[in-house]
Amino acid sequence: MPSAVSFGETMIRFSTKNFERIEQAREFEVSIGGAESNFAIAFARLGGRSAWISKLTNNPLGRLIVNRIREHGVDVSNVIWTKEYRVGLYFIEFGRKPRGIEVLYDRKNSAFANIQPHEVNWDVLAEYDVFHTTGITVSLSESCRKSVKMGITKAKEFGTKVSFDVNYRAKLWSPEEAFKALDAILKEVDILIVTKEDAKSVLLAEGSYEDIARELYQRYGPEVLVLTLGSEGAMAIKDGRIYRVKPYPIEVVDRIGAGDAFDAGFIYRYLEKQDVKEALEWGIAMAALAHTIPGDPVYIVRDEVKRLIKGREYCEIMR
Amino acid sequence: MPSAVSFGETMIRFSTKNFERIEQAREFEVSIGGAESNFAIAFARLGGRSAWISKLTNNPLGRLIVNRIREHGVDVSNVIWTKEYRVGLYFIEFGRKPRGIEVLYDRKNSAFANIQPHEVNWDVLAEYDVFHTTGITVSLSESCRKSVKMGITKAKEFGTKVSFDVNYRAKLWSPEEAFKALDAILKEVDILIVTKEDAKSVLLAEGSYEDIARELYQRYGPEVLVLTLGSEGAMAIKDGRIYRVKPYPIEVVDRIGAGDAFDAGFIYRYLEKQDVKEALEWGIAMAALAHTIPGDPVYIVRDEVKRLIKGREYCEIMR
Amino acid sequence: MPSAVSFGETMIRFSTKNFERIEQAREFEVSIGGAESNFAIAFARLGGRSAWISKLTNNPLGRLIVNRIREHGVDVSNVIWTKEYRVGLYFIEFGRKPRGIEVLYDRKNSAFANIQPHEVNWDVLAEYDVFHTTGITVSLSESCRKSVKMGITKAKEFGTKVSFDVNYRAKLWSPEEAFKALDAILKEVDILIVTKEDAKSVLLAEGSYEDIARELYQRYGPEVLVLTLGSEGAMAIKDGRIYRVKPYPIEVVDRIGAGDAFDAGFIYRYLEKQDVKEALEWGIAMAALAHTIPGDPVYIVRDEVKRLIKGREYCEIMR
Amino acid sequence: MPSAVSFGETMIRFSTKNFERIEQAREFEVSIGGAESNFAIAFARLGGRSAWISKLTNNPLGRLIVNRIREHGVDVSNVIWTKEYRVGLYFIEFGRKPRGIEVLYDRKNSAFANIQPHEVNWDVLAEYDVFHTTGITVSLSESCRKSVKMGITKAKEFGTKVSFDVNYRAKLWSPEEAFKALDAILKEVDILIVTKEDAKSVLLAEGSYEDIARELYQRYGPEVLVLTLGSEGAMAIKDGRIYRVKPYPIEVVDRIGAGDAFDAGFIYRYLEKQDVKEALEWGIAMAALAHTIPGDPVYIVRDEVKRLIKGREYCEIMR
Amino acid sequence: MPSAVSFGETMIRFSTKNFERIEQAREFEVSIGGAESNFAIAFARLGGRSAWISKLTNNPLGRLIVNRIREHGVDVSNVIWTKEYRVGLYFIEFGRKPRGIEVLYDRKNSAFANIQPHEVNWDVLAEYDVFHTTGITVSLSESCRKSVKMGITKAKEFGTKVSFDVNYRAKLWSPEEAFKALDAILKEVDILIVTKEDAKSVLLAEGSYEDIARELYQRYGPEVLVLTLGSEGAMAIKDGRIYRVKPYPIEVVDRIGAGDAFDAGFIYRYLEKQDVKEALEWGIAMAALAHTIPGDPVYIVRDEVKRLIKGREYCEIMR
Amino acid sequence: MPSAVSFGETMIRFSTKNFERIEQAREFEVSIGGAESNFAIAFARLGGRSAWISKLTNNPLGRLIVNRIREHGVDVSNVIWTKEYRVGLYFIEFGRKPRGIEVLYDRKNSAFANIQPHEVNWDVLAEYDVFHTTGITVSLSESCRKSVKMGITKAKEFGTKVSFDVNYRAKLWSPEEAFKALDAILKEVDILIVTKEDAKSVLLAEGSYEDIARELYQRYGPEVLVLTLGSEGAMAIKDGRIYRVKPYPIEVVDRIGAGDAFDAGFIYRYLEKQDVKEALEWGIAMAALAHTIPGDPVYIVRDEVKRLIKGREYCEIMR
Repeated sequence: MPSAVSFGETMIRFSTKNFERIEQAREFEVSIGGAESNFAIAFARLGGRSAWISKLTNNPLGRLIVNRIREHGVDVSNVIWTKEYRVGLYFIEFGRKPRGIEVLYDRKNSAFANIQPHEVNWDVLAEYDVFHTTGITVSLSESCRKSVKMGITKAKEFGTKVSFDVNYRAKLWSPEEAFKALDAILKEVDILIVTKEDAKSVLLAEGSYEDIARELYQRYGPEVLVLTLGSEGAMAIKDGRIYRVKPYPIEVVDRIGAGDAFDAGFIYRYLEKQDVKEALEWGIAMAALAHTIPGDPVYIVRDEVKRLIKGREYCEIMR
Repeated sequence: MPSAVSFGETMIRFSTKNFERIEQAREFEVSIGGAESNFAIAFARLGGRSAWISKLTNNPLGRLIVNRIREHGVDVSNVIWTKEYRVGLYFIEFGRKPRGIEVLYDRKNSAFANIQPHEVNWDVLAEYDVFHTTGITVSLSESCRKSVKMGITKAKEFGTKVSFDVNYRAKLWSPEEAFKALDAILKEVDILIVTKEDAKSVLLAEGSYEDIARELYQRYGPEVLVLTLGSEGAMAIKDGRIYRVKPYPIEVVDRIGAGDAFDAGFIYRYLEKQDVKEALEWGIAMAALAHTIPGDPVYIVRDEVKRLIKGREYCEIMR
Repeated sequence: MPSAVSFGETMIRFSTKNFERIEQAREFEVSIGGAESNFAIAFARLGGRSAWISKLTNNPLGRLIVNRIREHGVDVSNVIWTKEYRVGLYFIEFGRKPRGIEVLYDRKNSAFANIQPHEVNWDVLAEYDVFHTTGITVSLSESCRKSVKMGITKAKEFGTKVSFDVNYRAKLWSPEEAFKALDAILKEVDILIVTKEDAKSVLLAEGSYEDIARELYQRYGPEVLVLTLGSEGAMAIKDGRIYRVKPYPIEVVDRIGAGDAFDAGFIYRYLEKQDVKEALEWGIAMAALAHTIPGDPVYIVRDEVKRLIKGREYCEIMR
Repeated sequence: MPSAVSFGETMIRFSTKNFERIEQAREFEVSIGGAESNFAIAFARLGGRSAWISKLTNNPLGRLIVNRIREHGVDVSNVIWTKEYRVGLYFIEFGRKPRGIEVLYDRKNSAFANIQPHEVNWDVLAEYDVFHTTGITVSLSESCRKSVKMGITKAKEFGTKVSFDVNYRAKLWSPEEAFKALDAILKEVDILIVTKEDAKSVLLAEGSYEDIARELYQRYGPEVLVLTLGSEGAMAIKDGRIYRVKPYPIEVVDRIGAGDAFDAGFIYRYLEKQDVKEALEWGIAMAALAHTIPGDPVYIVRDEVKRLIKGREYCEIMR
Repeated sequence: MPSAVSFGETMIRFSTKNFERIEQAREFEVSIGGAESNFAIAFARLGGRSAWISKLTNNPLGRLIVNRIREHGVDVSNVIWTKEYRVGLYFIEFGRKPRGIEVLYDRKNSAFANIQPHEVNWDVLAEYDVFHTTGITVSLSESCRKSVKMGITKAKEFGTKVSFDVNYRAKLWSPEEAFKALDAILKEVDILIVTKEDAKSVLLAEGSYEDIARELYQRYGPEVLVLTLGSEGAMAIKDGRIYRVKPYPIEVVDRIGAGDAFDAGFIYRYLEKQDVKEALEWGIAMAALAHTIPGDPVYIVRDEVKRLIKGREYCEIMR
Repeated sequence: MPSAVSFGETMIRFSTKNFERIEQAREFEVSIGGAESNFAIAFARLGGRSAWISKLTNNPLGRLIVNRIREHGVDVSNVIWTKEYRVGLYFIEFGRKPRGIEVLYDRKNSAFANIQPHEVNWDVLAEYDVFHTTGITVSLSESCRKSVKMGITKAKEFGTKVSFDVNYRAKLWSPEEAFKALDAILKEVDILIVTKEDAKSVLLAEGSYEDIARELYQRYGPEVLVLTLGSEGAMAIKDGRIYRVKPYPIEVVDRIGAGDAFDAGFIYRYLEKQDVKEALEWGIAMAALAHTIPGDPVYIVRDEVKRLIKGREYCEIMR
């Protein structure tokens, strides 16, 4: 059974209903969201063993977060509890054209942003196939950045693969800051996932999608690199071969968390079958389903992914 | 005033909100659903006189079902009440692409599935123009199948026309079981309605839509046969002439019950005007409206159907 | 800072949820709606100074209306309160194809319909750049019509510009009645706004959009005339020059109030910059955003309009 | 099976949630309410045969009212439909001490207030044991008052008993107006029901409860007179004997409709058993249950009333 | 850290809102309920280690149940999943005086009722201090009864204490059936909990509370016996000494699950401190808090229990 | 017309529904709360002229706060807007016995806590009869404390009375800190309001209520001092005379904001009539009504207060 442990912050998510704006809301739906816990949840739901490492203030909001992650079978026993700081929040309003989706972060001074590298029980990484984190975690604070580095170092020691999704967020840092912080980290990564937009604007790769993939693959030297292409599907490169998968036609209910579901699908299947094209298929299927499910966590089961994939042609291998 | 009596099971319908999955629901909307009561409701709302015959456990859930059918003016005085068995339930979650609509039946051992042919007051059929039922009713149990047969026999005695919608449901029986049970029944039917999919996979008709219609018309010898074509409209055959009607452009809110609304529109107008093309127009207009209304029962009034039909070109008569 | 005062009726708005029909509703959402207060709200939100003049029964429903207008910073100190009459109501159900949006008015005998020209404090018009009202107000009663006329006369005295949106409503009067009442009024108008449909069916203008604009411009002699073109954008004419703006691609959440948002955007920017093309851009951007926001009042801020406009090409000036 | 037909207006009922004030509401719960339909519903639910005569505007609100009465098995085939006038509305907010329950009527110019005596199909009264109406109906308009009188005259002709609940409402008329209109009517009544408050302030009876009962019994000469005593239970007088029943300890959820439920319980059992003390027991039990059920209609079944009565001591017969 | 494993059925719980009756519901709140999982949840929330053994149909309803138990940190890895049978359901409406709380079970033919003794992984009992189950489990089927017996046998082998709450439910079996099935089982129990009502009507103990406690203590010979006294608190007997604890003044929000919370509080503290009076205090405090929290699972944390207990006098030890 | 300007922080208020705990919430109701804006709202609703001075981050949450204060007619034109910091939040869950109401503040680093004395437009104080603030404002930060001092100094200059409610909050500071900060401030206050609890534990007054009132009156020398007594009513002292008012019997819906409503009622009437006993009556009536209305803002109108007071005996003057 594939296994993965992720590291990052999860926030309370407040969303308005029926396309209401935050300013006019009388009620918020209360759920949770965080790229790394979304990943761990999706990974567990596919049948994998997963854990999530984080730090939270021990109050009802912090407990709510842990409950809703644990609900899916994710191991949360390495969450660090504190009486200090606060629980990060984010507010979301869904728009329709020409009004976009709007996110308002209120996550400053959270417990996680104050996590210290040495307070984490990194030894647990030895029990998992993959250690997964994202650029969001790196961006949150200096101590978060150091913690990611220590995590990667420990993973290497244990022979645990490092997977990393660049996940650039303009509300958290500038492309220049991101590049500066991530460039060194990415060289340590085994499974590297990046959107085409981030590849260009943050990692400064250029050319066709294939050019970009090859450039980053050479620059950072991961075992496998995935370039996600939004409505054009996804592409991966391993051992010099390029794989490409088409997207599903989708009608969007809630796009938040779709990238994390992709990561889970890809990594889960990659670990299970060591097959890049199957992994891409699982990633893109997970992302498609995640777009149709309200909330960050992706309420699916393994059979639904298989059924969806069965109904369509397989991805192509180029070259 | 056209009149019709229907026979079948109605369940409590639990639906999730806002495309939530059943597994994540915190609330279910509670309504009712059953092909034959949907038909009776739609028929009454168009201005017809209608009744619904069924069997229900006498508890709050059973009473809820009867209330919500009676609300529309359907005569429910021939429902058989029992203290035994249970009330059938179904759960529904609406999906968006690529996730489909999902239905979970929990209807085993319901009062209706245990109905006995001799406990029904079949004499009431003499007071109606049409006796309507569907393949769902036949599938539920041996005693349901026998009850349908007795109902048809009685209808014939009284000179009441028999209308039947094949309504195949893969969650209830296999195509082979369905064919075996329905083949004999369909020979007794005056107004036969079937989807193109069921015509092919259950009734094993082949060829163009017209071929299929002609084949089934000859095989079962109904007064009129309707082949519904989904997004391509509908077709009917009577006295060797084929009629075809185009669909409306629709945006779907809730597709459940649209077929039953078609049946009610078609049969109501067919009885009222003895005009197949008008009947097809009413059927397709009812189905279109039903797609836009939440819940199984179709909250429309006769004038709305007329107004809708007025706004577009009439159906064609082929040959 | 541009300033405007509007005059008209605002009703309680009851809307069903999730495309339910009024007949099946168990809950109504309670908000407010009225073309002139929608205008005043949108105007204030853009950064202007605005007021709304009306008459209301002093009960919880009347106070609810004033609260929700005042919330946006509109001056309501000239609302006339009475113990008599009633608060106007309207019910709305949203449809999807082929079922349309349905509005049920219950506004007869409202306090506003009984407003008398001399009870209004018209002197306040002197403090605003523009006096805005619509054809709806004219249609409500003889005393409303007289009040509009007195308002226009006073505005002229004070040098306050008169703006008027024809806003024909078939549920309130016939095109002939409307034409008869409006023809004289429109000759006094400085900023005249009319949809292409009303221009044809009520004002009886003919030919191409440009022909229509020129005809009405000559017939009524306003400073500027705007012809709104629905999904084709909008057109304006001033000093013989014609300006045209393209629409935004939109996905509709709630179209009620979009025309009023257009008026506010156009007039606000026209007053601010004396630039017809910019005014059209602001009008069309406001209308686009209003389509995506539930309820009549348009919860936007000035920066969002600017950001939206920035993202697309500018309107063309023809000739 | 006891049978009864009632005559009166039913309105749409808008209620706020969770003790909110009307002025702060964002949602209203939508149900129906009217003393006479509440009576007919409760009567039908106990197992009786009942009908409701009224007049309604044929729009979604009017149909909503009829649906929700018909749901319980009440015959609504004698409702008069019109395209004119409007549907009466009322708004309700529940208070807690020291803030009381607040009702806001918006029922002027309703279809029912414009009912004409000769448009009612009074012949249907011949088919029922009892013709029931209340002082509310009398208060609504001159034509309502005349209609009540004609109904009573017809009932007398057919040998149908007349039952009447004084049901004084201070928001509809003054005690003096009520007395003037009701005094003549009450002399024709067979079953007369009045609260202790109305007995004193409207009917001007004085003294102890027993004095009041005896005085009204002599003044109006009904077959049976019931004096309801609120938290002290109820009292009845027939053939000179006085009966008294204690109240149940109750916790109030929604007190609206409790008096109507009393009437239905009392009259139903009185017709069934000709036993005043049993009738009082059923009345008081129905009223107690009605206090615990949200909304005007009382969702109970006959067995629940019997079970409740069984659990406590019987009423006393005095003298 | 105290540890406990429980064995029983958990159902989906549908509850109406705001004291609505089931028959009038338009929405149900969806949660879960089952005495043994309520116990395991409460035990885990206090800081203990707990597991829940059961059998469920693998569909969205079954997964919903497991998710909501796992959310609290209960180990669900020994739940047996099947494709057969169904998920048990129950419907609840809350009443107010004189209308009681109403429960409607729809749990026949559930997966759990079809559990077979040999399919359970009983070895896991060895890892826990206590094996807990209730009379409800015994009542569900013959195979459930056998499974309980096998579980008890295994627990004895492993030196795991057996705790048992009689939990008689009149809707599931008669007192005679219950006595017949439970009498043998209770002799094997180490921690026996029973309400005063069940002690009398099912176990046929008589006399004062103390008499009853002593009689059952002697008859069944448990290590400790608890007699819960509802609004009079609770009593326990161990080593011949009787302990008694007073109740808290409570205002009830939702009483379902309060008994299970008592069990968890009592057993948790009893294991932790081997102190009967402290255990009683924890039990009664947990029960009091559970009465104020909507839903079966008791959302509390250990500190809240301690804080509550601190604020009042300690229980008395009699003799 | 009495007039008042208040100074303090207002937060977004998230409340759970139906006594749910924060940890189990799926939805929060979104409103606002802050002692000083509650005061300004209540003051305006009584018919006074009021303003609220504060500092807010200019985002949808900040605008939501201003809208909901402005809705009631409070002047918000002196709110300071910033792009920095955050909007304060608080979470509330209502309990029932023995579980108390629980408040979770998340207000650190709010814009208001960072307000600087010199950025406030204090000149506006000259236009109001009273400048009102509370101990909460003083507690929030050093710069808040300095701002309060500057405000008081300015008020004194302008001849504007200073009113101050001690409003001690244990979650914000210790009694010692509070005393230290407030002791000097209170000497400048004209209208001083304090609860009996705060009088004892923070201000360290002792003895009977009258002793306490006299001691504080002498120590701080205000024009009038009010001692609120919770369920025992309230007491005031002016010119050596003591006034006392009894409480109303109340059933609590939402107690938050009741103290602020008291302040508004007392001060409004005190300014209007210079009559301490009438002022006490208005204060206690406002507090009683506020207990029955969900949310911080008190949706009442002046007439309701007068009607409530009329229905009961007047307060006593002692000595």
